Amino acid sequence: MSQMLTQVLEEIDRTLEASLARLETFLRIPSISTRPEHKADCRRAADHLVSDLTSIGFNARTENTPGHPMVVAHMSADQPENAAHVLFYGHYDVQPTDPEDLWRHPPFEPVIENQDGRKVIVARGASDDKGQVMTFIEACRAWKKLTGKLPVSVSFLIEGEEESGGENLLPFMKAHRDELRADIALICDTGMPDRTTPAITTSLRGLLAEEVTVSCAQHDLHSGMFGNAARNPAEILGRIIGSLRDEAGRVVLDGFYNGVVTPSPEIRAQWKSVFPDDKAILQPLGLSDAAGERDFSAIEQIWARPSFEVNGITSGYTGEGFKTVIPAKATAKISFRLVPGQDPQKIRETFRAYVKSMLPPDAKVQFTSHGASSGSQLAQAGQFLEKTRTALQDEWGKPALMIGCGGSIPVAGEVKEALDMDALLVGFAQDDDRIHSPNEQYGLEQFHRGMRSWVRILASFAA
Amino acid sequence: MSQMLTQVLEEIDRTLEASLARLETFLRIPSISTRPEHKADCRRAADHLVSDLTSIGFNARTENTPGHPMVVAHMSADQPENAAHVLFYGHYDVQPTDPEDLWRHPPFEPVIENQDGRKVIVARGASDDKGQVMTFIEACRAWKKLTGKLPVSVSFLIEGEEESGGENLLPFMKAHRDELRADIALICDTGMPDRTTPAITTSLRGLLAEEVTVSCAQHDLHSGMFGNAARNPAEILGRIIGSLRDEAGRVVLDGFYNGVVTPSPEIRAQWKSVFPDDKAILQPLGLSDAAGERDFSAIEQIWARPSFEVNGITSGYTGEGFKTVIPAKATAKISFRLVPGQDPQKIRETFRAYVKSMLPPDAKVQFTSHGASSGSQLAQAGQFLEKTRTALQDEWGKPALMIGCGGSIPVAGEVKEALDMDALLVGFAQDDDRIHSPNEQYGLEQFHRGMRSWVRILASFAA
Repeated sequence: MSQMLTQVLEEIDRTLEASLARLETFLRIPSISTRPEHKADCRRAADHLVSDLTSIGFNARTENTPGHPMVVAHMSADQPENAAHVLFYGHYDVQPTDPEDLWRHPPFEPVIENQDGRKVIVARGASDDKGQVMTFIEACRAWKKLTGKLPVSVSFLIEGEEESGGENLLPFMKAHRDELRADIALICDTGMPDRTTPAITTSLRGLLAEEVTVSCAQHDLHSGMFGNAARNPAEILGRIIGSLRDEAGRVVLDGFYNGVVTPSPEIRAQWKSVFPDDKAILQPLGLSDAAGERDFSAIEQIWARPSFEVNGITSGYTGEGFKTVIPAKATAKISFRLVPGQDPQKIRETFRAYVKSMLPPDAKVQFTSHGASSGSQLAQAGQFLEKTRTALQDEWGKPALMIGCGGSIPVAGEVKEALDMDALLVGFAQDDDRIHSPNEQYGLEQFHRGMRSWVRILASFAA
Repeated sequence: MSQMLTQVLEEIDRTLEASLARLETFLRIPSISTRPEHKADCRRAADHLVSDLTSIGFNARTENTPGHPMVVAHMSADQPENAAHVLFYGHYDVQPTDPEDLWRHPPFEPVIENQDGRKVIVARGASDDKGQVMTFIEACRAWKKLTGKLPVSVSFLIEGEEESGGENLLPFMKAHRDELRADIALICDTGMPDRTTPAITTSLRGLLAEEVTVSCAQHDLHSGMFGNAARNPAEILGRIIGSLRDEAGRVVLDGFYNGVVTPSPEIRAQWKSVFPDDKAILQPLGLSDAAGERDFSAIEQIWARPSFEVNGITSGYTGEGFKTVIPAKATAKISFRLVPGQDPQKIRETFRAYVKSMLPPDAKVQFTSHGASSGSQLAQAGQFLEKTRTALQDEWGKPALMIGCGGSIPVAGEVKEALDMDALLVGFAQDDDRIHSPNEQYGLEQFHRGMRSWVRILASFAA
């Protein structure tokens, strides 16, 4: 195997240009799942994956859902019964691109940039998740091309609603349980603590997303005619948002921290070794002082503590110039990142009750849920985990860290629930990839060694 | 005179349909002064007035300014030396129309509606200020048509930047001081306390308008990757807005209430006679409880107390669906209505200092001024005031009230400053005219008796 492995790794190096070209083709499809006007583009992205996987030799197809289509594909190892079977999960949908004017190039026209000697590809989805999905697809392509087969049986499940809180994944996996079950799920939607330290993500934050609309008068009012006497929903919403954290940076909702477990001293020490202070995290953002809870470092807050965020707010006149209006309503998109142990439903109820308790007379509130998922603690042992750690260490030349992830990857928990499988989260994204922001990027080194890492991991599973 | 007066009043009644048709033509011009794309429409509105006034017999023209054009017109009474000379002020520009989807009809296609037997004309500008301007123009038309002359000398100054904090009015009046000076200025941009009680507005609120932008990180961030550790400008802005009022509804800025004079018991009693409680003001808005300062009734807060308002706020993702982003910046349009005695510059400084004092590390703030004008106390005596009160009482059959106005009509103070003239504020708008809001309207009764009121006032000035 080891000689074959070397040849496949060489094939990866030799065909890097072609792999990059295929990634660019994928990135040109504006598959923004949350925007109805891009429905057809999501379909195009799914069809594109099916034809690409078919060209490798996979038995691939799309499956319709009430939302965007799923991509399902399979290829068996030579003796399936003896070989391990992995299910790879990723998503082909991407975030919206606004504010458009902050992009250096059109978001769906990928450009290779040279940043102080480091090459990156800039486009929406470059890192999250198209670039990462392609690292695995290209690994399979190289194995198949060079050896005519895959070292293990591989199935794909690639969805198109990860960025839009899609409710269709769980029911879909349950409905296709027999087809999708494997020995282990591989999810490539996470990152590395820095450019050279490989990592396996073993804890994830969940997400509780709420839209809150406060309304008062029946219509917008002239602030000269009614200013002072008429309730102002924007002021009320400001008061609510501004009061959700105490002076120590803790969320004031009753029982918000119930069930939250502080990481062990060992883990905190391990993390501190990579992040001696907050600088590495904050400086690239133009920040110097960690917000949030006083008693935790920036990395601890991101990997192991729940958060409260205002993701958007709008009310009244926001155009050019000035309009002396008292808005009839004010809307905020508010979310909480949740860690293992917190109960999303309880926190939603507490949050809604808190908002209602802050309303003065004449103020009404309307809530819209944009999804709720709990944080998850992933398997921290097992042969696949050990083999993956070794394979990553072989590729990157240093031990793989067990880290947390501030983002929510509901599929990890859903794979467990629907398919009763453990999931291994291995990804190569960097904190400065600007995912969800203008000028999202993915390092070519990450892309290249990501492919090589998967080549090694697949080999290790066959051993 | 009195017989002639009767005939002119009958002419007004007889030609109501034609007057209404002319108002509709005026309303069809979308002269939104704050929107650059409507610059040509503002010009059209000015030209339209010039040709209409010319058709009456006025010597009318437009005058260019750095912003939108001014309309200037003159017509002398038979013996100018013996006759009184009035300068009429109004504005042809209107507010933006958003949110468009709340309009029952397109905002610039006037429609006459029957509301429980009361007829109103619905369109942007119907009340503020095109409808009110036309009441005076039509009064002049009727006098000229029936008697071949005007009872007094009349000059017009109609501007196009009243809704966009236009800085050009004051310098223009100063530059044309000799041409524009008259015995008294008549301003028709105010309202009546109810449908049947005429009023002269003798105190006005000023306006301090500020745009505040708080920014933190260099670009939008993924809330999963940085949520908690990175400052959130929307949360900070909410905290600032939510803390500007204390529990008693008072603005907390140092010295905000310095110089504010509480109306005399006589005036408060007079107002209470028309507004025994807050119902008449709040109920039409769908409200039941007066916001703002506890110790003052709704009408006192609007006519005689300073206010704090959030006129608009925007940050992060406000589109359909949900985007888990930490915004890089958050912007609010904030204004304070000021009463006579308050110093706009001092309050601006105090406000900006307060905002800065609320900023945590890494948060920066940028301020944009959208104008500042102080409240004004208008002449409460003089022959013109007395004659106007009598004329209004003759038309409406009950005494005219001396009231305040919650809106800011900077021209009143500027006429005094630039032309050293007193101003009489007489208007016929109603609180439920929805000015600055969707479905702005003007009662046909207000329009009709407004014209008749001016016919009488002009007659009384000649006596």
